[in-house]
Amino acid sequence: MTPDALPPAERVKISFEPDGGQPREVRVPAGVTLFDAASWNGIAVDSTCGGHGTCRKCRVRVVDGEVPVSRLDPRAFGLDELRLGWRLACMAPVRGDVRVEVPPLVTRPKAATVGVGRQVILRPAVQKRYVELTEATLADQRTDLERLLAALDDLEVRADLRALRNLPGALRQSDFRVTAVVVDDVLVDVEPGDTSARRFGIAFDLGTTTVAATLLDLATGTPAAVTSMLNPQQPFGGDVITRISATMLDPDALGRLTALAHSCLDQLASEVCTAGAVEPHEVYEIALAGNATMTHIALGIDPEPLGVAPFVMTSRSFDGLLAADLGVTVNPGARAYLFPALGAYVGGDIVAGALASGMDRDKRIRLFVDVGTNCEIVLADGDRILATAAPAGPAFEGAQIRCGMRAAPGAIEGVKISDDDVALQVIGDVGPVGLCGSGLVDAVAALVQVGLLDASGRLMAADVAAVTAPGLAGRLRQVGEERVFVLHERGDDPADAVYISQRDVRELQFAKAAIATGWRLLAAEMGIDPADVQQVLLAGSFGSYLSPASAVRIGLVPGVSVLRIVSAGNVAGEGAKMALLSVRERAAAHALLEEVRYVELSDRPDFNDRFIDQLAFPS
Amino acid sequence: MTPDALPPAERVKISFEPDGGQPREVRVPAGVTLFDAASWNGIAVDSTCGGHGTCRKCRVRVVDGEVPVSRLDPRAFGLDELRLGWRLACMAPVRGDVRVEVPPLVTRPKAATVGVGRQVILRPAVQKRYVELTEATLADQRTDLERLLAALDDLEVRADLRALRNLPGALRQSDFRVTAVVVDDVLVDVEPGDTSARRFGIAFDLGTTTVAATLLDLATGTPAAVTSMLNPQQPFGGDVITRISATMLDPDALGRLTALAHSCLDQLASEVCTAGAVEPHEVYEIALAGNATMTHIALGIDPEPLGVAPFVMTSRSFDGLLAADLGVTVNPGARAYLFPALGAYVGGDIVAGALASGMDRDKRIRLFVDVGTNCEIVLADGDRILATAAPAGPAFEGAQIRCGMRAAPGAIEGVKISDDDVALQVIGDVGPVGLCGSGLVDAVAALVQVGLLDASGRLMAADVAAVTAPGLAGRLRQVGEERVFVLHERGDDPADAVYISQRDVRELQFAKAAIATGWRLLAAEMGIDPADVQQVLLAGSFGSYLSPASAVRIGLVPGVSVLRIVSAGNVAGEGAKMALLSVRERAAAHALLEEVRYVELSDRPDFNDRFIDQLAFPS
Repeated sequence: MTPDALPPAERVKISFEPDGGQPREVRVPAGVTLFDAASWNGIAVDSTCGGHGTCRKCRVRVVDGEVPVSRLDPRAFGLDELRLGWRLACMAPVRGDVRVEVPPLVTRPKAATVGVGRQVILRPAVQKRYVELTEATLADQRTDLERLLAALDDLEVRADLRALRNLPGALRQSDFRVTAVVVDDVLVDVEPGDTSARRFGIAFDLGTTTVAATLLDLATGTPAAVTSMLNPQQPFGGDVITRISATMLDPDALGRLTALAHSCLDQLASEVCTAGAVEPHEVYEIALAGNATMTHIALGIDPEPLGVAPFVMTSRSFDGLLAADLGVTVNPGARAYLFPALGAYVGGDIVAGALASGMDRDKRIRLFVDVGTNCEIVLADGDRILATAAPAGPAFEGAQIRCGMRAAPGAIEGVKISDDDVALQVIGDVGPVGLCGSGLVDAVAALVQVGLLDASGRLMAADVAAVTAPGLAGRLRQVGEERVFVLHERGDDPADAVYISQRDVRELQFAKAAIATGWRLLAAEMGIDPADVQQVLLAGSFGSYLSPASAVRIGLVPGVSVLRIVSAGNVAGEGAKMALLSVRERAAAHALLEEVRYVELSDRPDFNDRFIDQLAFPS
Repeated sequence: MTPDALPPAERVKISFEPDGGQPREVRVPAGVTLFDAASWNGIAVDSTCGGHGTCRKCRVRVVDGEVPVSRLDPRAFGLDELRLGWRLACMAPVRGDVRVEVPPLVTRPKAATVGVGRQVILRPAVQKRYVELTEATLADQRTDLERLLAALDDLEVRADLRALRNLPGALRQSDFRVTAVVVDDVLVDVEPGDTSARRFGIAFDLGTTTVAATLLDLATGTPAAVTSMLNPQQPFGGDVITRISATMLDPDALGRLTALAHSCLDQLASEVCTAGAVEPHEVYEIALAGNATMTHIALGIDPEPLGVAPFVMTSRSFDGLLAADLGVTVNPGARAYLFPALGAYVGGDIVAGALASGMDRDKRIRLFVDVGTNCEIVLADGDRILATAAPAGPAFEGAQIRCGMRAAPGAIEGVKISDDDVALQVIGDVGPVGLCGSGLVDAVAALVQVGLLDASGRLMAADVAAVTAPGLAGRLRQVGEERVFVLHERGDDPADAVYISQRDVRELQFAKAAIATGWRLLAAEMGIDPADVQQVLLAGSFGSYLSPASAVRIGLVPGVSVLRIVSAGNVAGEGAKMALLSVRERAAAHALLEEVRYVELSDRPDFNDRFIDQLAFPS
């Protein structure tokens, strides 16, 4: 902690200590429940009720830090237990740093809780069947496959060549006692002996910036490992448009981008398998949620038509794929499920996110905003679902911001400005070295509040600032040609300071105006006032970490009570997990394609006027 | 020609001179029609009637050599034309060397004649559709695939990833005018512009000894090129059992055998494409007929259970394969059709052969014998179809025969022995250097006839021979420990001569006894006398070249009139062609699986007794 850092206010640190497992430290927005924090980070906590406090299975013990007793805790615990720190994880919002013991799983649930409190009944596409067959004789020369299929007579399956390659050996290694692995209607593998307890899948969130993977135990619905990495396609451009441009300029670029996507997915698969102590051949299916550009590139399909009007996809959905088609070397017969896309800029990631957020089954007026380089927006009222995409640009990723950086150690992720002081929240136990997206939003919101930024986004002149905010005026400086506000001094050279520049403010204004125009147009289309929105879901690896108050203050989201603004976590990744756990949820995702109406912004005559209106900060 | 060679007697040389094409010289058994000879060798001759002389399209001109005028020729030609050598190819059996001009194809037939006079209505699985689509606009953002499928609304297809990779580029290169390539129910490619006239397939006969490929124009049913090569798996053993053994002894052998099969098929594909002036990407499907062992190995499936009792296949049929699964690099989306198998030793090659021979639709009692290392036998009477397999061993391939060699230049392929002379027919314009299978059968038959071999297969003692065949007795010699009959002297050393040894005779006896036991058991099973057989089809790359008279004389086939013994050509390859040309024929092949009853010989208590009975030559 640096001298001018405050105790954590809006992000909290949770140290999970699973019984018999490695402790894990995670950071989540304050207010997230212990259960969600564990779930998002791949730490298994018992639950069968979907996070409503009724199954009383999500028992954890808070051993350090404060978590208030909820109204449902006394039904689950005795007084002594409550004193020892026992809480129901799904009822326990975290407001400060805590250390939590997680008991071992006691149930083998028929359901898992994922997404935004979504309870998913386990019905994975991956099934295993242990069978004991009679050996072949001269009087019974049925083929190996006929023999096996006769024992699976309730399933209508066709055999994959890769399964057939293993079939004769598996049968004869194990006295004709084998486990058949079926994904949907395909026999993908045959294993000697009874391996029916071991079946895994990997859920991928293939983001433009970050790629995340969760290894799921498909028998229990619990995550076995989680990992993520920066998308290695970054050298080709930070956003989808620059990557599409790269493929248009260089005929080899598509091949190289595809290869990078494959090696990235494969490395993550390898990492989660190692971390979860799972053999790669025990992974029989992967599910992937990504935007249309990332998906097309990963499949080796030219993304150019996505990047130029009229913005056309090659296909909405891609069926019959193998994990190997995405470069993922798990079981050779493993299948791949890809989320279908709504449009060139409302891709499978948003369909997955809308599914995980239950946009199709809530009666309230809800606004879903996945904040990123390309910002996807969904508005639903229990009856209609509208979606659009807004090109926010890379400001939120910290790119094109003078002192911008990713949310890594040394990044300022939170900023509070009082009359005469600036308090910074910094990631990791180091001094501030830059500003990540959530810090930028906080800083701009705070500067507006203290009057150092006017509604049009102009930093005050020094003489004005000396009057309105004398304790802060000294932080307004000149760096090169630019006016800046210094957040943190480093040495004597002002250019070494961490600051926010006039141009940075403009970048953010541009980004938030694009987003605000998007949801305002959707609201107009639906005939509602933005103030009527009953819940705002901030999603995406970045959006979930935004301060709701700051988001309201700069006009990124409608001006509703901050209590109605919810961090939804990485909902695209949650959707991918749901698809692995339940074929019914996949059907729901495909139904969304019919239910959602995509509103194209780029050809709206009123777009530019509305966009300019939204550049200013709310007064 | 060597001094003691006779003019061609039982094999004839035909020089085909296609209009505008390269002349081709082929060798076929005497009695084969010009049409069949052309068809087996990939030379396109018009025909729509199935070789019955009624369509009068198969007009060719014999410019050298004699071909008698058939009873149907005067209906097709004027007297002048007949004098100039014009004949209907399907009515023209060839009895001596001829040179024949083949006119260009004038019809684009709806049917092609393949197999044993089988007329196949063209209905290939490969279809092409040229479509002109409207370009996408902001008001019509349908995906490329939706746009294309809407124009193919009479077809129910799913898109292969490889087709999707080409789709956006093909549409935009050609103003949205493209040709869709569909195989069965899969969209396998999309090509810019109208390419609907160009669609090709390759039919493979994957034999243990020889692998053959025919490139077929699927739009017309005509062959565009034919080639063959020795199976490069030979170093692992000459027959299926030794190759299976190799995989049991060496864990790497299967991988190497699979790779050899792939490279062989791929090389043949490349050769026929070059010869036929066809781009590999214009080949959208391959069809393959092979025995179960060759098929399993080519697919990378452990063949061990095929090689040991109870002789079990992994699967009868293999569906949903790509040409790439067999190592064939043609169009990346090209599919592969494999003939299903009846049993471990009555494989897809026999099903293909039975299809091409019409075993399922002839009312006569017919016996089909595919002579080879493993000999497959089918007996049908218009009502029932029985099949079995006989392990004949490698004698017919020239292996394990002292002076044995393959049917290559220098091989003695025909032998006639009179009282005091030996006349040899030798392949190519060189002196005799060895003996191929048909020569061995001829030689043994002739030695039996002149009394130098007794019915039990023993070469006469020198003193007996001096009395019974004084003009030949000098050819009975001793080479090392063995008694031999010299066919051709080379230099002074008797070991350099081309001869047939006592052990060679034993090898042949063993082979023919296995085969004869097979068809005798099938006849017994069907309740008929072998003499009742109305037609014997000698098939396979080797069987077709056997002299029918010699085959009868040694007891390889029932003792029926030689006129009833027909060379059927490479019927497995013909079956593969039929599968490419018609999905209905594929359905017929699968129906055969139900109709044919496989009779397992190896567990018959009477097999050994019958086998020993058959070792002797008929007296």
